[in-house]
Amino acid sequence: MVEPFLQPVDAKARRLAKTLLRTARWGALACLEPETEIPLASRVSVAPAMDGAPVMLISQLSSHFAALEADPRCSLLLGEPGRGDPLAHPRITIIATARRLGDDLGRSQLRHRFLSRHPKAALYIDFADFALWRLEPQRAALNGGFGKAFALTATDLTTDLTACGELQAQEASAVDHMNDDHRDALAAYATGLLKQPPGDWRLASLDPEGLDLVLGDRLARLWFEPPLANSAELRPRLVDLARQARAAQGGNHSTS
Amino acid sequence: MVEPFLQPVDAKARRLAKTLLRTARWGALACLEPETEIPLASRVSVAPAMDGAPVMLISQLSSHFAALEADPRCSLLLGEPGRGDPLAHPRITIIATARRLGDDLGRSQLRHRFLSRHPKAALYIDFADFALWRLEPQRAALNGGFGKAFALTATDLTTDLTACGELQAQEASAVDHMNDDHRDALAAYATGLLKQPPGDWRLASLDPEGLDLVLGDRLARLWFEPPLANSAELRPRLVDLARQARAAQGGNHSTS
Repeated sequence: MVEPFLQPVDAKARRLAKTLLRTARWGALACLEPETEIPLASRVSVAPAMDGAPVMLISQLSSHFAALEADPRCSLLLGEPGRGDPLAHPRITIIATARRLGDDLGRSQLRHRFLSRHPKAALYIDFADFALWRLEPQRAALNGGFGKAFALTATDLTTDLTACGELQAQEASAVDHMNDDHRDALAAYATGLLKQPPGDWRLASLDPEGLDLVLGDRLARLWFEPPLANSAELRPRLVDLARQARAAQGGNHSTS
Repeated sequence: MVEPFLQPVDAKARRLAKTLLRTARWGALACLEPETEIPLASRVSVAPAMDGAPVMLISQLSSHFAALEADPRCSLLLGEPGRGDPLAHPRITIIATARRLGDDLGRSQLRHRFLSRHPKAALYIDFADFALWRLEPQRAALNGGFGKAFALTATDLTTDLTACGELQAQEASAVDHMNDDHRDALAAYATGLLKQPPGDWRLASLDPEGLDLVLGDRLARLWFEPPLANSAELRPRLVDLARQARAAQGGNHSTS
């Protein structure tokens, strides 16, 4: 790509890219129609893997399923416009290689992450003609609005899980535990720390860099500062954030 | 595409496809990155030409501008998800050939249509590095939600302008006239016939099959039943629709 106006990639650009990746519920997939090599754009439902790579749930009946089986090179556009000029809103194109996920441990963890964002997909996620596909990011084009274009590498987009190896195996039970027994802390994260509207917020997913909260169709990302150095830090961090969140809520109460 | 579950294309499917085409303000373009032939998905602003073909305003600085100059084969995904499962909402992929529009009569009409939907683009539409591109539809894949897939031809998507040749030259002044002198009729179309919320509705565009109303970011399509047989029918049709709309508004008042 010849883009002489590219900005240098900084922490803010990486944070924006990762936020788009981790809060998207859908995107536009571009892949190659096998017979014609014409690029096809299709709507897909997405959820991030723990490292941030997008995971899609797609049907064998869709033309993009056959297309990715024939040629896994693709890209995914994330970031939805809000009000006003559609080009003033941030979006990212992730150039990736798609890989269909088999029935292994990884699938069960990703299934949990996917359903936490798309509860209605429980109706069909286990049908034989549906499969989860992981998009392995190669690079990305981030556009933060007019004049704010960045070329990102795969490492700008994803989260290194090496130091937090156990987190992948622990995530589903940790998420269920928070949703079963600490709903008040989740609501405090959302309203106290993220200034989201009140509601029955649930935990959707956890990773070394933060957690994702969900309320109906709304997703909100809470970043850990600093990221977890190892998975043993998760529990004390969640407790500490709950304390901060309740203090912030208290502050809110006095002004509301 | 091997899609054994395709439904037969009927008037309802054509109407849905045309509604998606004529009410979209943005879409996801898939084109081929020249150096790699990887399919790229990018956000684009769109407005329909009078026949319904999508028109995009794109910058020479964007990677899709260079991509379309190298290979005009592309597709455009239109139709945004609302609440709930993203795959339950209708969307269409239009397979098309892109053509950059020069500084001719066609451009001035399309510029008017584009700005009626994207008033903020007035800031940059005339910059030397921006151009309008027309996407000539070849065929389309319409997905009206689970189990409702259709393969459409170009003639299913677009409107034959042959019998209404003068309408293209007359459109901009007819639209301006309605916006200057008949704002009350436009509001009546929106609230009385289309059950839209009240507001300062403007006319965005006209074609033989209907008209498009705009209120901020909201677009609403009013279909002519039957379509205009010639451009002389436009004025009496608008008057007749205003009469119907006011009668419907009266009916609304008694129940509100």
